Amino acid sequence: MLWLWYQHNGKTTDRLVAEEAEITKTPNKREHDVLLSTGEQITIAKLCMCLNKLGYDAVSYTGWQIPIITNSVFGNARIQEINTKRIEEDLQNRKIVVIAGFQGIDEDLNITTLGRGGSDTTAVAIAASLNAERCDIYTDVDGVYSADPRVVKDVCKIETISYDEMLELASLGAKVLHNRCVEIGKKHNIPIYVKSTFEKESRGTLVTSNECMENLCISGVAKEDNIARITLIGKTNKIGRIYKVFSILADNNINVDIIVQAFGEHISKDISFTVKEHDLEETLEILNEHVKEFDIEEIKSSTGMSKVSIVGIGIANNPGVAATMFEVLYENNINMHMISTSEIKISVLVNSNVAETTLNAIHERFITKDTVSV
Amino acid sequence: MLWLWYQHNGKTTDRLVAEEAEITKTPNKREHDVLLSTGEQITIAKLCMCLNKLGYDAVSYTGWQIPIITNSVFGNARIQEINTKRIEEDLQNRKIVVIAGFQGIDEDLNITTLGRGGSDTTAVAIAASLNAERCDIYTDVDGVYSADPRVVKDVCKIETISYDEMLELASLGAKVLHNRCVEIGKKHNIPIYVKSTFEKESRGTLVTSNECMENLCISGVAKEDNIARITLIGKTNKIGRIYKVFSILADNNINVDIIVQAFGEHISKDISFTVKEHDLEETLEILNEHVKEFDIEEIKSSTGMSKVSIVGIGIANNPGVAATMFEVLYENNINMHMISTSEIKISVLVNSNVAETTLNAIHERFITKDTVSV
Repeated sequence: MLWLWYQHNGKTTDRLVAEEAEITKTPNKREHDVLLSTGEQITIAKLCMCLNKLGYDAVSYTGWQIPIITNSVFGNARIQEINTKRIEEDLQNRKIVVIAGFQGIDEDLNITTLGRGGSDTTAVAIAASLNAERCDIYTDVDGVYSADPRVVKDVCKIETISYDEMLELASLGAKVLHNRCVEIGKKHNIPIYVKSTFEKESRGTLVTSNECMENLCISGVAKEDNIARITLIGKTNKIGRIYKVFSILADNNINVDIIVQAFGEHISKDISFTVKEHDLEETLEILNEHVKEFDIEEIKSSTGMSKVSIVGIGIANNPGVAATMFEVLYENNINMHMISTSEIKISVLVNSNVAETTLNAIHERFITKDTVSV
Repeated sequence: MLWLWYQHNGKTTDRLVAEEAEITKTPNKREHDVLLSTGEQITIAKLCMCLNKLGYDAVSYTGWQIPIITNSVFGNARIQEINTKRIEEDLQNRKIVVIAGFQGIDEDLNITTLGRGGSDTTAVAIAASLNAERCDIYTDVDGVYSADPRVVKDVCKIETISYDEMLELASLGAKVLHNRCVEIGKKHNIPIYVKSTFEKESRGTLVTSNECMENLCISGVAKEDNIARITLIGKTNKIGRIYKVFSILADNNINVDIIVQAFGEHISKDISFTVKEHDLEETLEILNEHVKEFDIEEIKSSTGMSKVSIVGIGIANNPGVAATMFEVLYENNINMHMISTSEIKISVLVNSNVAETTLNAIHERFITKDTVSV
């Protein structure tokens, strides 16, 4: 049997970021990664020393020592290949292998970091490379809940959740697991067990391919703040504009979330979409550079919005879920700016000042009241 | 024109060592190097960010990125090879290249550190690999002095000193430059210019192959504390004992300094030598294991001794130097335990409680009074 443990350690990294901020607010991205990667390197060495002290034979590896090959997007690199030769040799010799997460090297031997959720991503990627039975992630929460316990009352811990549901919850602001690591888990079918570092007795949440057998299982609700909405008002319904807008934003690594294009007669030339607030300024700059090319008449934007979502297998086949959700919002006098649906989720964009109310109302209606079905 | 700058940065490393000590007093040596090497990695990234901020194009490299290949003696590795390809390309592109000192990798890609003086050593080794015109070392003192200014009054700064004299001064406890870096400078004939980071106007000291043209130039005096003396009293004058004793100590990486074997009738079977006090315990353990093999009757040791030395080209050809030195000690009622001489130095072992007095008395007689000649 073979599995991987992973434990977060953010304090050193936080200190490095603070020290960097004293030097510059706009660090060279390559040097930023050289700096930040030391945090996990310090951790692996110390962890091995602790394990040695307890009598275990442990050996540490940095990203470049494995090596974990990534692309060259500093600060947000993607893992491309992991060489498991040294890991497998050490495991066969009964050693505990401690690998620095969050880091890799590109083809030119530059140090890269994986960005948010990078440590979890490394753990699951290594588990996948080793064909591990399971990847255990020890973190500061004891599992995945039906909603953020700091915001919503009476939340329930989820014992088992599918990759897809977890992906929706992760990308919707439930900060337990980053969606990149869940994607790798799904792709290679590695079960991910999320568990508390601090509460030994507590059971965690297992993320697997096992789907809910019921007709409808609502897994949870989630909220993401600091969303900005941009609306492009077009002169004409120019062919290819949507493609061009979103491909140029993708080239600039700006993640666009909800996209709405209404095809009614009088608004057919407009596109609305959301980005994270901290990307808004750059997004507007890029769009303004291409106003003529895209044949855009006006660019409108608004901030201070939140996305509230409900996630569960079978939502698409249960029109009642959307209806009930909109009813809850109506009852609470909450205005929706955008709506987005998928197979397993429904998201609405609301003003941030009513986001918590929205989240609680939806959680109460779907989870606290009825637990798994509407 | 091409040269290298180097600046010490010990704070981060000090903190890492303190954090390590909280975990274990006997860290695994490989992991110790993984931990310690992060200090310089943090520094190179930050330095590049500072240079960027000033408008310069700078790029950082860790030891493994160059790579700087060393042997596998963790904590005290020796540089074996430096690949200058990336450095030369970057320099040709007018970039400032910032390289982490003190670290390298062995053939199995393990991280190694170079031990005391490792950062200076890296700087001079890179200068040698690049055939640089000079290596500038920016440090916390503004040059090499005729003695430690904290201990001796009226010291003079040395403008130019030969590699050999600097080697003697370095190994004798003048902590400006470690002897490993001076050895590399000598071997590859790279002038080393030691200069203050903080006092821009001050001229430093140049270490070169240029020798003093005078008949005798006393460069300086130096003191090294925490010396232990060991005396092996033998049953017989066994052939090969000296060879065996010192080769087994060398195998255990114990540096032996002054060795005295008197060949008078009644003491011909004894050997005395000095080691650093922190090596004493291990040295005695090793010797005790081999008491029979070496035919040793008794092992005596004493601590609390200091080595005081005078360094200058031409000392060997000026018997008056030794005589004057012994006269100074006699006048000050200072007892000598051992004497060692070389081409360019005379060292005496005295009790540590009179070491400062000895140093001052010698400095006053040779340097303050007569400046360069006796």
